[in-house]
Amino acid sequence: MDDTRLTLRLDFGANRSIGPGKVRLLEAIGRTGSISQAGRELGMSYRRAWLLVNDLNLCFQQAVVSAHPGGSQGGGAQLTKFGQKLVADYRAIENDAFSAVKSHLRDLESSLRPADPVAVEKPKKTSIRSRTR
Amino acid sequence: MDDTRLTLRLDFGANRSIGPGKVRLLEAIGRTGSISQAGRELGMSYRRAWLLVNDLNLCFQQAVVSAHPGGSQGGGAQLTKFGQKLVADYRAIENDAFSAVKSHLRDLESSLRPADPVAVEKPKKTSIRSRTR
Repeated sequence: MDDTRLTLRLDFGANRSIGPGKVRLLEAIGRTGSISQAGRELGMSYRRAWLLVNDLNLCFQQAVVSAHPGGSQGGGAQLTKFGQKLVADYRAIENDAFSAVKSHLRDLESSLRPADPVAVEKPKKTSIRSRTR
Repeated sequence: MDDTRLTLRLDFGANRSIGPGKVRLLEAIGRTGSISQAGRELGMSYRRAWLLVNDLNLCFQQAVVSAHPGGSQGGGAQLTKFGQKLVADYRAIENDAFSAVKSHLRDLESSLRPADPVAVEKPKKTSIRSRTR
């Protein structure tokens, strides 16, 4: 059961939240330097991507993305220093949460039905690995 | 810190997962003794609720819900012992994860923009409590 993954969502109340979708979007913006391209990578419209970024910019005291107008799709964009810290913090929280509940997860995994007929042959003892980030 | 909530989703690979939606459904089934009524409480169709229960029953070696045929909407249902344990385990995992990342969360909270005091358009269900900074 190497591939058990834990994903978390944080709700700060009053419709302010951060979860895997927004974080993946931020990571893609950091990688591509573009909100529209990041959105495309994740299969979302520019409008949807922009709204998520806007949500985040309004959620925190500091902006997470700085966008530069220009180009038919909204120009370039980059993570601010705070945006980079936010992504790193979220991933650290995810890792810490995962570490904290590993023994619980191992317990749950032992209750799983084998994924497919072939998996019946696999040894029951399982190891938990955090996914590559 | 008062308002911040952590929600988690566990993916075991091969389309097997458990998260807040399935767990709330199980809790509602435990409470109502009925898949259809539990689904209604959560605003989902009987079909949707049944499919989620079926997913879970196929995910683990033991069934999580035992359903008794009868009635136009599928008769009664109850959590199995394993189903009760699964819900308790999930909630314990959530609690442990939350405890493990509390200081991270406090840090993030200090970066939040104060919730908009001028949200007069919508009636608020809950008052906004002051946060620990």
